[in-house]
Amino acid sequence: MKPLVIVDPFFRRMPEIFRPADLKRLHAIAEVAWARSEPMPEAEREQALPEAVAIVTGGWRRYGEGALDRAPKLRAIMDVGGSFPGPELDYEACFARGIRVLGSAWAFGPMVAEMALGMALAACREIAVGDAAIRSGTELWLHKGNRTTFSLYDQPVGFIGCGGLARSLRPLLVPFRCPIRAYDPWLTDTYIREEGYEPSGPEELLRRSRFVFVLAVPAPENQALLDRDRLEMLPRGAVLVLISRAHLIDFDALTEMVLAGRFRAAIDVFPQEPLPNDHPIRAATGAVLSAHRAGSVPEDLREIGRAVVDDLEAILAGLPPRRMQPAIPELLRRR
Amino acid sequence: MKPLVIVDPFFRRMPEIFRPADLKRLHAIAEVAWARSEPMPEAEREQALPEAVAIVTGGWRRYGEGALDRAPKLRAIMDVGGSFPGPELDYEACFARGIRVLGSAWAFGPMVAEMALGMALAACREIAVGDAAIRSGTELWLHKGNRTTFSLYDQPVGFIGCGGLARSLRPLLVPFRCPIRAYDPWLTDTYIREEGYEPSGPEELLRRSRFVFVLAVPAPENQALLDRDRLEMLPRGAVLVLISRAHLIDFDALTEMVLAGRFRAAIDVFPQEPLPNDHPIRAATGAVLSAHRAGSVPEDLREIGRAVVDDLEAILAGLPPRRMQPAIPELLRRR
Amino acid sequence: MKPLVIVDPFFRRMPEIFRPADLKRLHAIAEVAWARSEPMPEAEREQALPEAVAIVTGGWRRYGEGALDRAPKLRAIMDVGGSFPGPELDYEACFARGIRVLGSAWAFGPMVAEMALGMALAACREIAVGDAAIRSGTELWLHKGNRTTFSLYDQPVGFIGCGGLARSLRPLLVPFRCPIRAYDPWLTDTYIREEGYEPSGPEELLRRSRFVFVLAVPAPENQALLDRDRLEMLPRGAVLVLISRAHLIDFDALTEMVLAGRFRAAIDVFPQEPLPNDHPIRAATGAVLSAHRAGSVPEDLREIGRAVVDDLEAILAGLPPRRMQPAIPELLRRR
Amino acid sequence: MKPLVIVDPFFRRMPEIFRPADLKRLHAIAEVAWARSEPMPEAEREQALPEAVAIVTGGWRRYGEGALDRAPKLRAIMDVGGSFPGPELDYEACFARGIRVLGSAWAFGPMVAEMALGMALAACREIAVGDAAIRSGTELWLHKGNRTTFSLYDQPVGFIGCGGLARSLRPLLVPFRCPIRAYDPWLTDTYIREEGYEPSGPEELLRRSRFVFVLAVPAPENQALLDRDRLEMLPRGAVLVLISRAHLIDFDALTEMVLAGRFRAAIDVFPQEPLPNDHPIRAATGAVLSAHRAGSVPEDLREIGRAVVDDLEAILAGLPPRRMQPAIPELLRRR
Repeated sequence: MKPLVIVDPFFRRMPEIFRPADLKRLHAIAEVAWARSEPMPEAEREQALPEAVAIVTGGWRRYGEGALDRAPKLRAIMDVGGSFPGPELDYEACFARGIRVLGSAWAFGPMVAEMALGMALAACREIAVGDAAIRSGTELWLHKGNRTTFSLYDQPVGFIGCGGLARSLRPLLVPFRCPIRAYDPWLTDTYIREEGYEPSGPEELLRRSRFVFVLAVPAPENQALLDRDRLEMLPRGAVLVLISRAHLIDFDALTEMVLAGRFRAAIDVFPQEPLPNDHPIRAATGAVLSAHRAGSVPEDLREIGRAVVDDLEAILAGLPPRRMQPAIPELLRRR
Repeated sequence: MKPLVIVDPFFRRMPEIFRPADLKRLHAIAEVAWARSEPMPEAEREQALPEAVAIVTGGWRRYGEGALDRAPKLRAIMDVGGSFPGPELDYEACFARGIRVLGSAWAFGPMVAEMALGMALAACREIAVGDAAIRSGTELWLHKGNRTTFSLYDQPVGFIGCGGLARSLRPLLVPFRCPIRAYDPWLTDTYIREEGYEPSGPEELLRRSRFVFVLAVPAPENQALLDRDRLEMLPRGAVLVLISRAHLIDFDALTEMVLAGRFRAAIDVFPQEPLPNDHPIRAATGAVLSAHRAGSVPEDLREIGRAVVDDLEAILAGLPPRRMQPAIPELLRRR
Repeated sequence: MKPLVIVDPFFRRMPEIFRPADLKRLHAIAEVAWARSEPMPEAEREQALPEAVAIVTGGWRRYGEGALDRAPKLRAIMDVGGSFPGPELDYEACFARGIRVLGSAWAFGPMVAEMALGMALAACREIAVGDAAIRSGTELWLHKGNRTTFSLYDQPVGFIGCGGLARSLRPLLVPFRCPIRAYDPWLTDTYIREEGYEPSGPEELLRRSRFVFVLAVPAPENQALLDRDRLEMLPRGAVLVLISRAHLIDFDALTEMVLAGRFRAAIDVFPQEPLPNDHPIRAATGAVLSAHRAGSVPEDLREIGRAVVDDLEAILAGLPPRRMQPAIPELLRRR
Repeated sequence: MKPLVIVDPFFRRMPEIFRPADLKRLHAIAEVAWARSEPMPEAEREQALPEAVAIVTGGWRRYGEGALDRAPKLRAIMDVGGSFPGPELDYEACFARGIRVLGSAWAFGPMVAEMALGMALAACREIAVGDAAIRSGTELWLHKGNRTTFSLYDQPVGFIGCGGLARSLRPLLVPFRCPIRAYDPWLTDTYIREEGYEPSGPEELLRRSRFVFVLAVPAPENQALLDRDRLEMLPRGAVLVLISRAHLIDFDALTEMVLAGRFRAAIDVFPQEPLPNDHPIRAATGAVLSAHRAGSVPEDLREIGRAVVDDLEAILAGLPPRRMQPAIPELLRRR
């Protein structure tokens, strides 16, 4: 008799996160309850809870109070939504009972990092604007088309936030030999230095970087961290890559300054999505714009399913999960 | 009395290739003749030749027959145009006299490789087309905007040509973990394998690569190497990056196939430049287009001057040059 | 008023693990109780417990039952002995109360890995036996002295145990390009493969490796894992590096087989230490022998103190520790 | 009709440098003359010269004056002895005729570098002396046996000579994170810096390195480069690894200072070989000694044969050789 695992990924759909091969592995090691793209009906859920050893979920919110109590055999809650369960989950109870709470944010790191690099290169080498010029017949050839371009090689880089996205982005920058300053109030300077970054306050970071990547997870303490005064500190002609959340920036100031040609930007996230049709950033030639597309490449999302099955293999064998991201008590308390 | 070096870089201009700091180093080690952006007048040149130990030139063609004979102290000819002196130079005489002929093509490697990567990412992640969509108010958000995107990670890559550009591009792909097939008839399979590539004929390479980078130097034997039949072998949805010369491809076939949505392309070089205004490729949404801008980033061109001075330092000290690219007899005979 | 930290490292001595600079950092962030090399007297300890937020200890055993209860502010127990507190610590209570239990085994990884590599090279290149030959005047020169030597480059390697030591050893082997098989029943095959090893049973590993490194932590289930029958599977002339614990091997069989010239060994750990004076392994010319010296290089032990202070900095700032090794519930249950 | 290649490797023997698989490849692409371990008899040689396109030789000296003239089709002379042909070869004639002169010194790089690392680790971790102690029953266990040991990690390293051996040694040191100073009068400081070393005079190098590796090829200008005064500059307790030639050092001073415990040494090459039986270095406990065994590991020597065949493949196809080391005119003039 195989252990029971609830697979209830909504708002994700099953094929969005599971490859057929991983589903097959899953069925080989566990009895699987539900495993459909629609939300699991409450009656079925309640029937499964008493035997469930793991719950794979896209929204713990649906489970409500007491669900933990009704699942005495539970050993893992595995989020597939892109983060961790919210405050509806009683984390302290989970820690006390030894229930692993595992997040999926790490799975987005590689694809978001790739997009960040691609957009940064598009900004400094003027790839999007150059492409548009050819389409409108206004392109300039050779040197004439490169008057304001520059390369990423050896440029000083700044990371606002030094967690999972930074971990994915950094190796992509290694061959470009960029020295990297990092600002992250959730890490000690000692640790940042030992990781090979130069720890830095946000202002020194802005002043001394040619490329700034905004990679931090939003939190109350970092709202509009990059306000107008700080954006003024960016060197003329720098590139600001906004890839985690618009929450971290004064977007109006950003818009004005890019429109004024003060620096360039590569922007995947906006304070309001969809972006209003008349938002002035849509016309900024100094920006590379993307409609929040960094983290939803179809094939890459299926790494979530693979890691879920990898970690279920481990947990069911009495071993620690090593692929997904365990919830860290100290950081939860900061949210 | 310092040794005499002729610096006659036309069609390059002096500040295009020399940073002030490198010019200063140059004047510290050599008497410098001319060193202006205009072509050196014949009379001045003839006066300098008898004492010149090195000639830095953007066009050996101007020097004409017999110049070698009139420069008995010559130890190096250093091209700054981007390649090697053409057939006007008597290479056999240079080899016999121990005159180093040094080329500058290597200097373009990093910036061209960066552009190749940037355009490849723009193609698979739809960065340029996504940017244009926002500007026209037709963008699709999140998953909806990613229906046809894919990542570079782990994708099979093919290199058409495995020389200097490949050497610069390859490290940029390392963090993406792409296995690379290489086709290069100027290298033995044994050597290609020992360099860590999978040696491959052009057809197998096209059939099995998701990204193909065209990196080869043009030569009579590779004209239209990628003809219509071979382009048909590319997997549906692949990305072809044309970055060295359009000479290597049947551009009409390429245009048709990209317009038909058969595969994607990233194109920096064209059979005719400037590209005619009515060329159909200008309208291809499956292409990322650039007006031959990969190899002329202003700051990066100045690496040429730095290497010229580095190698002059070596040569004047009786040491071998190690930064510029020495002419290779076997390859010259193949041109 | 700074938070109180108990520093009671006995059996370690203070200067053995703390550099002066790290002690200074420690005093800057905490009120420090005791901080002497002798065991902390019970009375002082009892006085400190009620206020202590962290305990740095070389032997939790001394603290006895109830100590946890008498330390209501405790947030971390930091072992500096080389492992984790034993079963005298109520781990479940720690997990329930959110007390971090941090181990120091990781600190030994680099120095043990270096010794493992040094001894492996000494074995295959016959460095110790060659040195002894020169001292006795019996050395053979050049080729004659290399009849049975071989290199590590490209050789198939096997890791018995794939935890912290493996993590430290592996980068040292990267430039030697060795493919590595790994056996570790505490990890899933999927994980091992994703880490870049070839997962393998112990027998296939022994049969197909030229160098085998024994790196596993001792546990009931791996006693004499490498018994006589399995040692017979090693290829003739292979090198077995025994560096974690003799517990994992049938040492009598190992001794006999090395004496018989069946394979070579590099041995740092023995079933009885000190090794009896008449133990036959002492005369084995096919072995490189070391008196359990891999993990006690003076300067390197002080990395423990540095990490203790790094993690205290984090914990006192309400951040997760990231340098020492957190206790993993699933693995504790297996001990 | 396949092209004719003379294979006359004496003093090397055929099986010493050729694996059967490489011999097979050789016979597939060329008509092979001689190919035996004894020196080729003069009559046979003279008969072969007129048609020979390449000569693989362990001693060009045997060929005598005029041999070049009698080989009008010659395109390559490939040394398999370990270096380049001596002054008996008319290099200028070779350069003038476009005959490639290819050396085999590079082939020794990896195995010599491995031995240099192994001996350096044996010195700092006291592997050989610790092994001898166990054999004599005088070993000290654990900390007591490590009072004077230290690790290679992060230690400042100096390279005397920055050519082929350095190129092989450096990657082995990368995981140890050692910053490297390099002294090499045959390279410009600019080049050394661009390679990632810190250029340095010999005295500063000695003063500031914990490990010094002597890697230079002997030349008139570097005889006893490390004389008594300079050896005095080494930090107390440093490790000097003498691996290229004793020519570079005042060996008497070295012996005295190691016997006096001033620093440690790892020595593979001696001013007189075999070393006299009564040489005092034989008794130095601060030294690791090896009887010139770094460069003659049997399996590794066969890389020479593989590279010979690789490059013959290229040359016979009209392509440049890329595996062996081409003679560099500027450096030949310095010998």
